[in-house]
Amino acid sequence: MQWYFVAALLTVLTSSQGILTTLSQSNGKYEYDYATIPFLAEVFKLAVSSLLLWKECQKSPLPKMTTEWKTVALYPIPSIIYLIHNNVQFATLTFVDTSTYQIMGNLKIVTTGILFRLFLGRRLSNLQWMAIVLLAVGTTTSQVRGCGEASCDSLFSAPIQGYMLGVLSACLSALAGIYTEFLMKKNNDSLYWQNIQLYTFGTIFNMARLLMDDFRGGFEHGPWWQRIFNGYSVTTWLVVLNLGSTGLLVSWLMKHADNIVKVYSTSMAMLLTMILSIFLFNFKPTLQLFLGIIICMMSLHMYFAPPSMLLDMPLTVKPDEEKLIEVAVDRRTRS
Amino acid sequence: MQWYFVAALLTVLTSSQGILTTLSQSNGKYEYDYATIPFLAEVFKLAVSSLLLWKECQKSPLPKMTTEWKTVALYPIPSIIYLIHNNVQFATLTFVDTSTYQIMGNLKIVTTGILFRLFLGRRLSNLQWMAIVLLAVGTTTSQVRGCGEASCDSLFSAPIQGYMLGVLSACLSALAGIYTEFLMKKNNDSLYWQNIQLYTFGTIFNMARLLMDDFRGGFEHGPWWQRIFNGYSVTTWLVVLNLGSTGLLVSWLMKHADNIVKVYSTSMAMLLTMILSIFLFNFKPTLQLFLGIIICMMSLHMYFAPPSMLLDMPLTVKPDEEKLIEVAVDRRTRS
Repeated sequence: MQWYFVAALLTVLTSSQGILTTLSQSNGKYEYDYATIPFLAEVFKLAVSSLLLWKECQKSPLPKMTTEWKTVALYPIPSIIYLIHNNVQFATLTFVDTSTYQIMGNLKIVTTGILFRLFLGRRLSNLQWMAIVLLAVGTTTSQVRGCGEASCDSLFSAPIQGYMLGVLSACLSALAGIYTEFLMKKNNDSLYWQNIQLYTFGTIFNMARLLMDDFRGGFEHGPWWQRIFNGYSVTTWLVVLNLGSTGLLVSWLMKHADNIVKVYSTSMAMLLTMILSIFLFNFKPTLQLFLGIIICMMSLHMYFAPPSMLLDMPLTVKPDEEKLIEVAVDRRTRS
Repeated sequence: MQWYFVAALLTVLTSSQGILTTLSQSNGKYEYDYATIPFLAEVFKLAVSSLLLWKECQKSPLPKMTTEWKTVALYPIPSIIYLIHNNVQFATLTFVDTSTYQIMGNLKIVTTGILFRLFLGRRLSNLQWMAIVLLAVGTTTSQVRGCGEASCDSLFSAPIQGYMLGVLSACLSALAGIYTEFLMKKNNDSLYWQNIQLYTFGTIFNMARLLMDDFRGGFEHGPWWQRIFNGYSVTTWLVVLNLGSTGLLVSWLMKHADNIVKVYSTSMAMLLTMILSIFLFNFKPTLQLFLGIIICMMSLHMYFAPPSMLLDMPLTVKPDEEKLIEVAVDRRTRS
């Protein structure tokens, strides 16, 4: 399977996620407990991965599975980072409003690039760095609040702690992605076996979260397992399946492509969601959305197109051109 | 003199032009007839060029001057194009509001690139095309009307004629620039001699425009030459000198660099003016200005940086890298 096919599918599913979530609300409110969604999605991913591993075990050669505790012990770490991230996110939102938080979320694109370079030691060309910054600028541009919108604060009006926590949040979010990539590429274990470890811890942490919520609420509505499917509709189930499938695709990309590919997929999904919202929810198309789309498309082309195509090498330097294609191919296969 | 030094100076002067023009107003109104400004600037440029040509004539070898009418007859054409452009601009503004017109003005960047390719036959790499589009996107982004601003129309709300005239206006404006470059590079005549021809026609056309205004107004305030300096302050004179100097720099760039360099200079000037306005006129800095600056800086780097720097050629392909620098240098000297 080609990575760009998976990346395109991830874009479509991530975009559907936003739309399905909106459609699953009744009168702008959730009839169900939203915290049950990621839990069930983890269970779904765990079930699918187990099934696929079992199928893989029927064939020879048998899939490679490292079971020593030193390796398994690395798998709860992404869940722990996400747990910290959620708390930082909560703290950030006490200082800044949601739309400022959303704008700051684009920083994640740049922090992913930086951690990709620092922790995974992957080199990016000057042009690819520019492409990453442009992707962040493009997504931010599409989110600029237009004229006539209600909430309208001046730039940098929130307390400094809010911005610092926003940066920390972007770093943690990027770190979780980078760490997962490191984990998936660390050895040539079966992807499904790696998934099972990852999702087992994911399921446990999400279960703990539901239990925590119950404790905080003093078990007013009873324990979570008694009311887990309360208010579920067909759309709610689609949200679960969609989120689960998104997770499986991300996992595949972490093993066979990289974090930057994932970042491009999800950024494009954000733009796609905005475009679809124009038709589905009667959103007003803005100039900034149009500009953001152009910027992100340019960024995509800059990052992934082979250098020889970007530079349109003149015919007189033909030998160079051929060597450049080699360089490009080499860079591609490494990523 | 290096072209980038002239380009930087043009950026500073173009930016001062906007600021001086604002400063020359009293209570938001012009005390003088604004149409006299370009006329006097043409006279100033003509005087400076004549002086410089005279100085050039004192030295040997004598400057090259083509005086055959077939060549001289080409020099009124830029003035004629500007005349048509001004009328199209006027017509456009009957269909669209000024801020939509300003946004559409950024199209000129792209049309300049296209005419540069079509009429001057200059090849640009894929990356340079992307840089040009990004420059237009960047300047447009910085102009997106923020929340809380008064005039606030939806995108594409004006009649179609308005947009078509806007595109025509962008084409004419680009055409004037491209034609001037063609004229200046057509032969190796002295720059000052070429300037004298250009500005003589410029002076005549501006004089005709003043006379036309008088006719339209029924000579209510007397002929233009009797009231030309009415309401002039020191700042008004600075506006004239500044506009004249800007014109001389543009002329130099048309001969020794090209239209794309000019377009970058003036686009950067627009951003510089917006930044200076924050300090001088208490403009509120917007997120979109900040994003626009990043986009334009990226575009500048993409267009002018040597490919070897952009692609960070790894050391293993050293021979390629050297050849690429040659390609880059070659591209530079052509521009």
